[in-house]
Amino acid sequence: MTQPESVNAAAGPGRELPDVSGLVVGVLGGTGDQGRGLAYRFALAGQQVVIGSRSAERAAEVAGEIGLGVRGADNAACARESDVVIVAVPWEGHAATLTALREDLAGKIVVDCVNPLGFDKQGAYALQVEEGSAAQQAAALLPDSRVTAAFHHLSAVLLQDAGIDRIDTDVLVLGEERAATDIVQALAERIPGMRGIFAGRLRNAHQVEALVANLISVNRRYKAHAGLRITDV
Amino acid sequence: MTQPESVNAAAGPGRELPDVSGLVVGVLGGTGDQGRGLAYRFALAGQQVVIGSRSAERAAEVAGEIGLGVRGADNAACARESDVVIVAVPWEGHAATLTALREDLAGKIVVDCVNPLGFDKQGAYALQVEEGSAAQQAAALLPDSRVTAAFHHLSAVLLQDAGIDRIDTDVLVLGEERAATDIVQALAERIPGMRGIFAGRLRNAHQVEALVANLISVNRRYKAHAGLRITDV
Repeated sequence: MTQPESVNAAAGPGRELPDVSGLVVGVLGGTGDQGRGLAYRFALAGQQVVIGSRSAERAAEVAGEIGLGVRGADNAACARESDVVIVAVPWEGHAATLTALREDLAGKIVVDCVNPLGFDKQGAYALQVEEGSAAQQAAALLPDSRVTAAFHHLSAVLLQDAGIDRIDTDVLVLGEERAATDIVQALAERIPGMRGIFAGRLRNAHQVEALVANLISVNRRYKAHAGLRITDV
Repeated sequence: MTQPESVNAAAGPGRELPDVSGLVVGVLGGTGDQGRGLAYRFALAGQQVVIGSRSAERAAEVAGEIGLGVRGADNAACARESDVVIVAVPWEGHAATLTALREDLAGKIVVDCVNPLGFDKQGAYALQVEEGSAAQQAAALLPDSRVTAAFHHLSAVLLQDAGIDRIDTDVLVLGEERAATDIVQALAERIPGMRGIFAGRLRNAHQVEALVANLISVNRRYKAHAGLRITDV
């Protein structure tokens, strides 16, 4: 299933993204809609995928439903067995989950895709986060990990729909370390239709996370599953 | 130059955007790059355009450079003579400018396109705004105006480039009142290549303004003039 990355727009001028086809992708919160959808897409693309959950049994159950060789494990084992670990847990459990996994996540590329949102009668709105953003909170709690942020704007509905073989959208990837963001960009590009676009440092993650509130408004107005494309790249 | 709007995706299911071809568009801060670029594009589309500046002479000078029937005036006259007033002033002058124009802007549709950003060695970052966003500050200072937010993500370079006749990007339009956001969406659609997409209430304006910091990172990485498209709409 090797699919070498060639020179492409997302890498930036004159560069190539790395070959990530051999990396094991873990998904913490992989039993939720977003995590399950990402696990499905990465497995479909040929990655080895491990779903993490507080309950190893629940993780194994969902992994079995997805098929495609996806394995289930408790969160700590998921973290240890993976090269790249996507954090797709509910915002409410974000800090506690990561705090407990600090050692298991040491040295790993962590990809935070959590959107801290509140909801009321008028729809969704961005929550204030003391550290600035979920991604910055992750970076603060995981000093020994390579923390990035990405995959915020994907529709869980589209991700999980086996009738859709292509998701035409861009994935904004943020982080401090180019080797890490390059790998996450390359992972995004494993999913047909997606591009991984570098979009800045973690201090600019808040607005990327919060923009999901706007996409929810778009979805409501247009009966859509809205995503983003960056033009002129 | 009338160009009636037909049923289109941006209006939402089963709706049409209004015909805005007869509206006078004012641009406060119309002598700056962003304001000048917007004035040029709207004039090119056939709108009557008035550029506002603290100095009426300076406004008239820039209006003359643009041509296409664009007029110049001091900010207060620009506001009074316009139906829709775009606020394209520097963030530093935002509050003071709007405070002084409260009466002149009464009853007008105000379109805030200001991005409160800071810059340092690492690039751009979002500033904290006490009211939440520039648009919410405008709404607080202009209780008698119909405040919206839009046109944040346009490249001033592309807007001003007379060699470019089409700008393929979406304009996110925010506001509390549908009649007002519909008009602003329709205005965006007057510029070839642009769609005006409703993207929520003003409480969700901060992240839309702040996202410019990310686009600046994109521009730097990819040597681009990045814009946004919303997919599935």
